[in-house]
Amino acid sequence: MSSVPEPSAALLQRAVAVRRAAVDLGQTDDGQRALALQAMADALTERAATILAANREDLERSAGEGLAPALMARLKLDDTKLAAAIDGVRKVASLSDPLGCRQLHRELDQGLVLERVSVPLGVVGVIFEARPDAVMQIASLAIRSGNGALLKGGSEARCTNEAVMDALQAGLAASPVSADALALLTTRQESLALLRLDGLVDLIIPRGSNELVRFIQDNTRIPVLGHADGVCHLYVDAAADIAKAVRVAVDSKSQYPAACNAIETLLVHRSIAQPFLAAALPAFAAAGVKLRGDAESVALGVAEAATEEDWSTEYLDLILAVKLVDDLEAATDHIRSYGSRHTEVILTEDAQTADRFLAAVDSAGVYHNCSSRFADGFRYGFGAEVGISTQTLPPRGPVGLEGLVTYRYRLRGEGHITADYANGSCVFTHIDRPL
Amino acid sequence: MSSVPEPSAALLQRAVAVRRAAVDLGQTDDGQRALALQAMADALTERAATILAANREDLERSAGEGLAPALMARLKLDDTKLAAAIDGVRKVASLSDPLGCRQLHRELDQGLVLERVSVPLGVVGVIFEARPDAVMQIASLAIRSGNGALLKGGSEARCTNEAVMDALQAGLAASPVSADALALLTTRQESLALLRLDGLVDLIIPRGSNELVRFIQDNTRIPVLGHADGVCHLYVDAAADIAKAVRVAVDSKSQYPAACNAIETLLVHRSIAQPFLAAALPAFAAAGVKLRGDAESVALGVAEAATEEDWSTEYLDLILAVKLVDDLEAATDHIRSYGSRHTEVILTEDAQTADRFLAAVDSAGVYHNCSSRFADGFRYGFGAEVGISTQTLPPRGPVGLEGLVTYRYRLRGEGHITADYANGSCVFTHIDRPL
Repeated sequence: MSSVPEPSAALLQRAVAVRRAAVDLGQTDDGQRALALQAMADALTERAATILAANREDLERSAGEGLAPALMARLKLDDTKLAAAIDGVRKVASLSDPLGCRQLHRELDQGLVLERVSVPLGVVGVIFEARPDAVMQIASLAIRSGNGALLKGGSEARCTNEAVMDALQAGLAASPVSADALALLTTRQESLALLRLDGLVDLIIPRGSNELVRFIQDNTRIPVLGHADGVCHLYVDAAADIAKAVRVAVDSKSQYPAACNAIETLLVHRSIAQPFLAAALPAFAAAGVKLRGDAESVALGVAEAATEEDWSTEYLDLILAVKLVDDLEAATDHIRSYGSRHTEVILTEDAQTADRFLAAVDSAGVYHNCSSRFADGFRYGFGAEVGISTQTLPPRGPVGLEGLVTYRYRLRGEGHITADYANGSCVFTHIDRPL
Repeated sequence: MSSVPEPSAALLQRAVAVRRAAVDLGQTDDGQRALALQAMADALTERAATILAANREDLERSAGEGLAPALMARLKLDDTKLAAAIDGVRKVASLSDPLGCRQLHRELDQGLVLERVSVPLGVVGVIFEARPDAVMQIASLAIRSGNGALLKGGSEARCTNEAVMDALQAGLAASPVSADALALLTTRQESLALLRLDGLVDLIIPRGSNELVRFIQDNTRIPVLGHADGVCHLYVDAAADIAKAVRVAVDSKSQYPAACNAIETLLVHRSIAQPFLAAALPAFAAAGVKLRGDAESVALGVAEAATEEDWSTEYLDLILAVKLVDDLEAATDHIRSYGSRHTEVILTEDAQTADRFLAAVDSAGVYHNCSSRFADGFRYGFGAEVGISTQTLPPRGPVGLEGLVTYRYRLRGEGHITADYANGSCVFTHIDRPL
């Protein structure tokens, strides 16, 4: 962690202020937090002109600095995008309260009652690249779930981010939640030092490139929610319906190739490879997808040869690696060796083979006869998403508000002591009560 | 991580073998895993004489090396302790299956159905100190939950651990589960290199001293389940029942002072300090507890003066720090500054004050009118415990089998593609179905 600076006194002071505000925020009720989000949305609406002007300033400066067109597009905030983001804040307000849910309710003995209740994490640290709508989305998810947030956006969007944060804090100031619950970090030094705020920050959420995520994972003791690579696979089984398989494979690759849930490698059962590729090659070509295959698939018409490196590459582009395999085991072995445990798909009309694939592959998502692109919090019906996690431990896969909550055990007694249970004068009853 | 060596080829090979066995183990059913645990228990019973002989060898060698008496006691395995450990294995066999639980069941659209199902983590790495019964306990928890395990015990117990592992693997060999699912690491080099097996090991569980846990947390990218410090607090409110408070405070400190859930600091509301301490001082003295107080509590009879360092010290001994506070806020502020978010107790007859404490303090356990020593998986009714976590993210507090499972999303469709939802020709229904 030699490249990560110690936090400055000013940063520590700001982080402590957010933490203090988060303690109060964690004790607000559902209505108060929903009100805070409505106030945030109102303030964004009122200050829309200021925000858009700040965004024009960012765009002009970034154009002058030669920012890549794709990043310019992500940086740009217009009336429509801002209105959609504000609408998103109101949508998060309407999500059901993730706090105060009783997950366990058990009498340990007469008069000694245990509960497990969902509570906020505390403070989340969010580091994101160009997109200024991320500030609004993450801030609303954090406040909805009772968490303080330290946010650090890309320097390209600094004017926009500051204008947005001013509005969000003005909204909070007019609500039951303290404006101190949100803070914007502005320098690169601060965003690095954020990684050292263990004890003050409970979770880091990086939203950006694989490199950003990997750097953060390697340089902090704070848990990180997210994923570096998304090397997803689609396996076309011997018993696949070819027309269906082609349609799903093309959608999985090309519906939005820059997404982490797009497939990078197509595994094809040798016995169906010839007719499948005959149908798939023109379909991929029509969708603008370039294929790179192993020797056998090249022999069946794939234009370019793949190298070992291709099997572990996340192209994030209209490129797809193709490999023929002997059977289901060979497919799952390949996935285990090269996959990133994100999302893997089998295409087959044989239900038993599908079940074996779904049991054998340990990725966050295992799919049968549908596109890998369904791996998404909105599509799963979570309403909003903090990110997609490829770690093994929960929360895993697309993560909604549940990624921002934890739980606490509450035990209420009447003077109960453990010596009485050690000497046998009392005995645990362990009777579950209704949640 | 400079102090952590790269894994040797031999270690990698063993870890890969465990991982492969874990893939099959993860697909076994409840009955097969319960059978495996019974076979493990049977083999331990059959080989009891060999195990006890190995333990005598360890004891003799360790006595010669001058091992401390407390550690000798933990190392020692006799008939009774071994029988209890074997009984523990059978008890874990009888726990309800943590795998295959459907946590979510949702129709995303007609014919497109999402499930979230509990699955094993994969492979756990366990590093523990002298106690040889830990091998049996952790191995049975791992197999019950469908996980492979790499175990590394203390060198003092190496003969015992090897004899126990031989028995466990012999048991597995006579069961539906492969003996390769368990492996014992024997050298210090291997236990350090274990920390570098990310990708092969999904969770590290350290069972041992605070120093061991802290070293592991600082030297691995693999998630660590556990806690370093347990600095637990008991707050005696102005409205406490003095007799009850004395009884609970003495139990919280002295029932087993070496445990992480014993209290280290007693916070006393100034207005009740005089009568409370008048009753508590003789009770603590009778229990052999030495007190260290702030100036005001020394003035009220506490024998020794505390220093700043005392507030953050986990004594693990019959020593207790005492501090007077102005009110509930001062108590919760102190806990926030010095606590380790393990377990904190309030003693009060005022239900409102108790509720405020339980809402304001964010520790894994927040208790009202009962001993901190109840913070334990067995007492909570979990049947068995993998450890106690003081991290913010779940699993938190005493962790049963749920610490060894995660979940996976299964999505089954009929050729569904996302382009249809993007262009509006299909619409998500998001209808929850019965679990």
